[in-house]
Amino acid sequence: MRLDQQKINQVNDQTLSEHRESFDHLSKVLGRKDVDANSIIGKLKEFQVAIPSWALGTGGTRFGRFSGGGEPGTLEDKISDVGLLHQLSQSAGSISLHIPWDIPEDVEAIKQLADSYGLLFDAVNSNTFQDQPDQKLSYKFGSLCHVDKAVRQQAIDHNLEVVKYGEALGSKSLTVWLADGSSFPGQLNFKKAFQRTLESLQAIYAGMPSDWKMFVEYKPYEPNFYSTVIQDWGSSHMLADKLGERAFSLVDLGHHLPNTNIEQIVATLMMVGKLGGFHFNDSKYGDDDVTVGSLKPYQLFLIFNELVDGMEDPTSNNPYPAWMIDASHNLKDPLEDLLQSLEAIKIAYAQAMLVDRAALEEARENNDPTLAQEILQAAYRTDVRPLLAQARLQAGGALDPIGTFRRLNVRKELIAARGAKTVSTGL
Amino acid sequence: MRLDQQKINQVNDQTLSEHRESFDHLSKVLGRKDVDANSIIGKLKEFQVAIPSWALGTGGTRFGRFSGGGEPGTLEDKISDVGLLHQLSQSAGSISLHIPWDIPEDVEAIKQLADSYGLLFDAVNSNTFQDQPDQKLSYKFGSLCHVDKAVRQQAIDHNLEVVKYGEALGSKSLTVWLADGSSFPGQLNFKKAFQRTLESLQAIYAGMPSDWKMFVEYKPYEPNFYSTVIQDWGSSHMLADKLGERAFSLVDLGHHLPNTNIEQIVATLMMVGKLGGFHFNDSKYGDDDVTVGSLKPYQLFLIFNELVDGMEDPTSNNPYPAWMIDASHNLKDPLEDLLQSLEAIKIAYAQAMLVDRAALEEARENNDPTLAQEILQAAYRTDVRPLLAQARLQAGGALDPIGTFRRLNVRKELIAARGAKTVSTGL
Amino acid sequence: MRLDQQKINQVNDQTLSEHRESFDHLSKVLGRKDVDANSIIGKLKEFQVAIPSWALGTGGTRFGRFSGGGEPGTLEDKISDVGLLHQLSQSAGSISLHIPWDIPEDVEAIKQLADSYGLLFDAVNSNTFQDQPDQKLSYKFGSLCHVDKAVRQQAIDHNLEVVKYGEALGSKSLTVWLADGSSFPGQLNFKKAFQRTLESLQAIYAGMPSDWKMFVEYKPYEPNFYSTVIQDWGSSHMLADKLGERAFSLVDLGHHLPNTNIEQIVATLMMVGKLGGFHFNDSKYGDDDVTVGSLKPYQLFLIFNELVDGMEDPTSNNPYPAWMIDASHNLKDPLEDLLQSLEAIKIAYAQAMLVDRAALEEARENNDPTLAQEILQAAYRTDVRPLLAQARLQAGGALDPIGTFRRLNVRKELIAARGAKTVSTGL
Amino acid sequence: MRLDQQKINQVNDQTLSEHRESFDHLSKVLGRKDVDANSIIGKLKEFQVAIPSWALGTGGTRFGRFSGGGEPGTLEDKISDVGLLHQLSQSAGSISLHIPWDIPEDVEAIKQLADSYGLLFDAVNSNTFQDQPDQKLSYKFGSLCHVDKAVRQQAIDHNLEVVKYGEALGSKSLTVWLADGSSFPGQLNFKKAFQRTLESLQAIYAGMPSDWKMFVEYKPYEPNFYSTVIQDWGSSHMLADKLGERAFSLVDLGHHLPNTNIEQIVATLMMVGKLGGFHFNDSKYGDDDVTVGSLKPYQLFLIFNELVDGMEDPTSNNPYPAWMIDASHNLKDPLEDLLQSLEAIKIAYAQAMLVDRAALEEARENNDPTLAQEILQAAYRTDVRPLLAQARLQAGGALDPIGTFRRLNVRKELIAARGAKTVSTGL
Repeated sequence: MRLDQQKINQVNDQTLSEHRESFDHLSKVLGRKDVDANSIIGKLKEFQVAIPSWALGTGGTRFGRFSGGGEPGTLEDKISDVGLLHQLSQSAGSISLHIPWDIPEDVEAIKQLADSYGLLFDAVNSNTFQDQPDQKLSYKFGSLCHVDKAVRQQAIDHNLEVVKYGEALGSKSLTVWLADGSSFPGQLNFKKAFQRTLESLQAIYAGMPSDWKMFVEYKPYEPNFYSTVIQDWGSSHMLADKLGERAFSLVDLGHHLPNTNIEQIVATLMMVGKLGGFHFNDSKYGDDDVTVGSLKPYQLFLIFNELVDGMEDPTSNNPYPAWMIDASHNLKDPLEDLLQSLEAIKIAYAQAMLVDRAALEEARENNDPTLAQEILQAAYRTDVRPLLAQARLQAGGALDPIGTFRRLNVRKELIAARGAKTVSTGL
Repeated sequence: MRLDQQKINQVNDQTLSEHRESFDHLSKVLGRKDVDANSIIGKLKEFQVAIPSWALGTGGTRFGRFSGGGEPGTLEDKISDVGLLHQLSQSAGSISLHIPWDIPEDVEAIKQLADSYGLLFDAVNSNTFQDQPDQKLSYKFGSLCHVDKAVRQQAIDHNLEVVKYGEALGSKSLTVWLADGSSFPGQLNFKKAFQRTLESLQAIYAGMPSDWKMFVEYKPYEPNFYSTVIQDWGSSHMLADKLGERAFSLVDLGHHLPNTNIEQIVATLMMVGKLGGFHFNDSKYGDDDVTVGSLKPYQLFLIFNELVDGMEDPTSNNPYPAWMIDASHNLKDPLEDLLQSLEAIKIAYAQAMLVDRAALEEARENNDPTLAQEILQAAYRTDVRPLLAQARLQAGGALDPIGTFRRLNVRKELIAARGAKTVSTGL
Repeated sequence: MRLDQQKINQVNDQTLSEHRESFDHLSKVLGRKDVDANSIIGKLKEFQVAIPSWALGTGGTRFGRFSGGGEPGTLEDKISDVGLLHQLSQSAGSISLHIPWDIPEDVEAIKQLADSYGLLFDAVNSNTFQDQPDQKLSYKFGSLCHVDKAVRQQAIDHNLEVVKYGEALGSKSLTVWLADGSSFPGQLNFKKAFQRTLESLQAIYAGMPSDWKMFVEYKPYEPNFYSTVIQDWGSSHMLADKLGERAFSLVDLGHHLPNTNIEQIVATLMMVGKLGGFHFNDSKYGDDDVTVGSLKPYQLFLIFNELVDGMEDPTSNNPYPAWMIDASHNLKDPLEDLLQSLEAIKIAYAQAMLVDRAALEEARENNDPTLAQEILQAAYRTDVRPLLAQARLQAGGALDPIGTFRRLNVRKELIAARGAKTVSTGL
Repeated sequence: MRLDQQKINQVNDQTLSEHRESFDHLSKVLGRKDVDANSIIGKLKEFQVAIPSWALGTGGTRFGRFSGGGEPGTLEDKISDVGLLHQLSQSAGSISLHIPWDIPEDVEAIKQLADSYGLLFDAVNSNTFQDQPDQKLSYKFGSLCHVDKAVRQQAIDHNLEVVKYGEALGSKSLTVWLADGSSFPGQLNFKKAFQRTLESLQAIYAGMPSDWKMFVEYKPYEPNFYSTVIQDWGSSHMLADKLGERAFSLVDLGHHLPNTNIEQIVATLMMVGKLGGFHFNDSKYGDDDVTVGSLKPYQLFLIFNELVDGMEDPTSNNPYPAWMIDASHNLKDPLEDLLQSLEAIKIAYAQAMLVDRAALEEARENNDPTLAQEILQAAYRTDVRPLLAQARLQAGGALDPIGTFRRLNVRKELIAARGAKTVSTGL
């Protein structure tokens, strides 16, 4: 399904003058502070976040799943859904596949389809946390860390197969998230598990094309409930460091213990040039995977404050990070939810770009925490929505993506096309 | 499947003299402190913990499930498994059914079967957190708290149906655990949701037989990730208080925020005569539902210290609580896991009975926290396993339940009888 | 010290036209949504937050204290400092005294002084968590919960003395925060401690004038590190309920376990008419007592969303809550810090007033969490600073309180008057 | 004050026969499992834990301090108190000084005094988290990370002075714990603060004697409440790695976010040969610094399980760690509290030595978490107190240290000698 650009424009037209007014006011206010609204708009237009293929259907918990209607049943449907998101938001310009949930049967056709929506293929994701129906050996007790070499080899082979699919589609990086760990004290030899994981990752790293990057994700718990082999950024960094210069840590917002200062981790990893990717979501309790910005928008801003700082730092050798939304939607329409996430991400990004960095550094040099806070909050409290709307408008998107999605009855049409009882692959 | 008592005895015989020696030593040591080992053994023999029907199969997480072999496929199989546990441990003398996972088709036959294993039916559990295939209205957005009266009525009717099943089997209480809540700020009107839940519970309460109790469980999060209607003991108590004198709070060890002092909650509820039931499990991060005592055995002891204190208090009007193991087993053999849980519970109970309460009260009156700690730890550090073994021996159980389970190849026989690829109903 | 109103006006004049422009734009935007900016401004002007006398000096931690210059050394100085805050912000119209840190020697003079700054005396605070030099019995092992009746009586008498001071000054409520609890398992009999605390509070309640309210604060830990007698809202509510209709719970933002849904607690207490007071601060880890809104401004907004909902509810019998900032400032200038806190509080309040409650209720009735979130975030993302500035301007305050504080060299003058090495009473 | 050995023996004699009986029984039980009780006793006798000089007086919180009587007012008194602890426990064979709280005026006399008690001087501790009365520049905004080079140099010089004192007394290591961090978002440039800290540590490292080690402690928060420069083991390890081979991480049990798997951190650091030291205490909420083993004795056992594993590993290049109790006692007699801590540490150590490591590895290789748990819990549930008592008895200590301390009226004598109102230096 593709939206008729005319219809998007028609919806835009209804609030265009109001938007113009707000945008003009904001441009003027920013201009007084020597901030060029157009420069920020330019960066917002460039900013693209990958949509993972599994986020397009309703997610679930161990207590059950309440699927919605019109969910994408095929890879083609999923690409089409990301295409819709991109058309409305102009920020969802890539898709991140999960193998084996999304094995492309006809690679060329898939590439052309994605291309027709203006979509690229971002990092590919392997899955060694579940057993597939035809799988020879089980991952019940781990994969890359498993005590049995044959299981480790199976997991290595799977990762290399994922890289092959990715290569065919134009991806340039592999994200490895491992559920490996233990649920009971005593179950695992921590040191041996770490060493085996390192060796397995080395085998995968060696098998990747020479222009590929590997992202090593960390997570403190779940689905294992006592220990995780890569439990924190320190462990992930230790692995990435030993693997080589194309290996990096990947930060997922939900993968931290309560109260963790995530922005400091981001800054530290960028300081040593090792932040490879970022998975966006939000949470109150654990890895809740709810809509980005729905609970802690200020934390998101503080993280973006470090990301912008790192990206703008001319002395940094950190690569441009891979961005992805990693959320799982229990109750909302998944597409609306992703539109809300995209909006929240770009709001935080725009606010972070508004931070007066020279003044902030001066306040820091003067040990003036009051002023430093004033500077951060002046940026954060600015209503930057007109900048986002303007960027979308210029790029052909919707002034109000969710409003437009509803006005154009997109979900209704998807249900009509796909049925009310589809269930998407994924969690 | 029933174990041959002769075989249990044969396994016991192999370590009997060693056991006798340890028991005699412990009895003597306790005797010096005026503790009568036999009195404790008597209470241990009386102590029975309900096994929930869903704990007999391998549990899962949202990331997948790795079923084991020989899992019970029918209610009859489940009762048989609890029978096995009871035969070995002599402490699993009741079963707690979950409707609709365990609807008894022939009530009389089921009762006779349970009776043949010496099992009673404890509290019955309703399920309004999942949609069943043939269900008319969905619980996606709540059940007893739902904005739609028809959904609430459906959930009320389901609970009353569960009571009916329970009545037929001899149960005397209903446990209500609600997933009701919200995953996003704004989704729910907290006050209206609470009022609707109260009204629904009142309807159920009114429909219960006059000798039944209702247990109102609380939980701060999961499967909802922003709010839960009955988020804590304070909310549960407020409901139980308004419902009437046969309504009580139910404490599940895993349903608390990080660092909660659960033992104080237990003491407080018993103080006002409102602790109705207790669900045992253990956890490190959230509601991990791992083996009882596998992570925080001292906390379990401190909780039992309050439970024993409340149960022994002649001025207390708190009813004898309903005990149940509420765990979900991802990696271990579920029956072995339950045997470990039963052992951990009884160890904590026995240790709590060893606490010199008169001396403890005196230390408290003297503001002597050092001595109070010495008294508690003297009890906790005692190796009470010989007391448990002796209680089992006297009742016809196994000196070493897990060792016996393995020696008698129970799982192998279950697989032979039921197959290697059974999947039990449950989470 | 009093600021020259002329000077405030002069500073205002420099940004007045820019402010007018932003305010006019916002009024227009709000007007389109049928929101009357002036009505919100009116409520903002009415909204007054009490400043506790101990927040005017630099606070400390157990690791030390780094006092700043010009701190108030006397009660008169403290009143003068609150006067300054009120002059700039027009929102700090009352002061909350802590006895024995702030015993007024000449009550009439103190009242006149406060009156000259337009200040009232809000809830008075007792202190039974420290031993004073001349104190007969120690609170080392508790106060209102103490095992020794004489200690309890001493603490009761102290509270009644605090009420007397408050009465003389025009206060109408007593806030009781207890450090009572235990640091080691076994130290305290939870039930007896609760009962003794209840009896002590009943004695205080009985001794209060009949138009006084009592606010019962709760806190899970610190300075006791194992248990607290009033550990949570459930315990506080149980006490308030038993005490009588002029006893209420008091919520301090920092007094919760990690991840607590505080807004739901607020809603629940207002539902039963038992939310008496609110202490503002912010925190990332524990009771960090840092500047309001410096870490979790969205949570603050969600709390205000419930507060506004409760205050606007015509069916509610909850009294208008007592507001106080309860922060302790380690690094910032205390007055600047309080100005930042006042700003953050009023921003959250203004945003909460912008929530389209009718639309929100409709979204809830339709189980539309996406729309509910859109409605909340539309309010939250609005830059309401022009409304606050306009309210201050109308009332004679500063458009930019902190900027004005700095431009007028207030701290420098205070140091000149009071010295660089003053140390304020307090934590 | 020195205890009369005769009197210790007399107290021992009263329970000697009971002890013998329990010890003989345990030896026999262990012997059946091929465990040599004497080998464990030998290791227990060798195991010595440093007592920090500041733990000998009553600690406090930001809310106040309730000092006890007979506290040590001088360094000589402190050494004497550690001597008492050592005499009773035979496990407190060293003292860890904190400069500037414990500057030795006459080094030779101090060394002789310590020697007369059989005490060594363990790691010395610097203090750059407080301002001393005569200090030139303030640490209010940090020390080794400070923006001002002069402050950093002052902190470097202080550390080198501490090393000098340590050298004179025979210490061989420096522990650096930094409060450096920020309490408000924006206050600190994370990357620059880390780099400055690294440079400062490099200067100290360069100034240490070539046979000294440096221990870099980490802590997530307090006294700073937003960020800490060395917030976790990953940051500490990054610094230690860059500093050189004599720099190591130091783990303090209380310095972790909620639910952290500390035993895995211990294993990881030992795996790479970088665990230098260990600070013992216990906590429920934050860095509560309460008695070791008073809350989470099983966690302590799991940590010792990794420590023993690392210490027994012939392939490990990790140095023997420095052990210290780092607790701060609010309510108990500090000496009794330290005796309880020493007991809890040695219980965990003895239990960890009982773990059947060969069987555990086999269970792990077989993916048998049930058996792995059985093996750990078999060790943990063993009542090892007779082993500890026997080790003390052989070394000339007390069978029951706290009982003996009370029977011999030690505190009463200390009060008689030092007065009832002494206040020790420290927190």
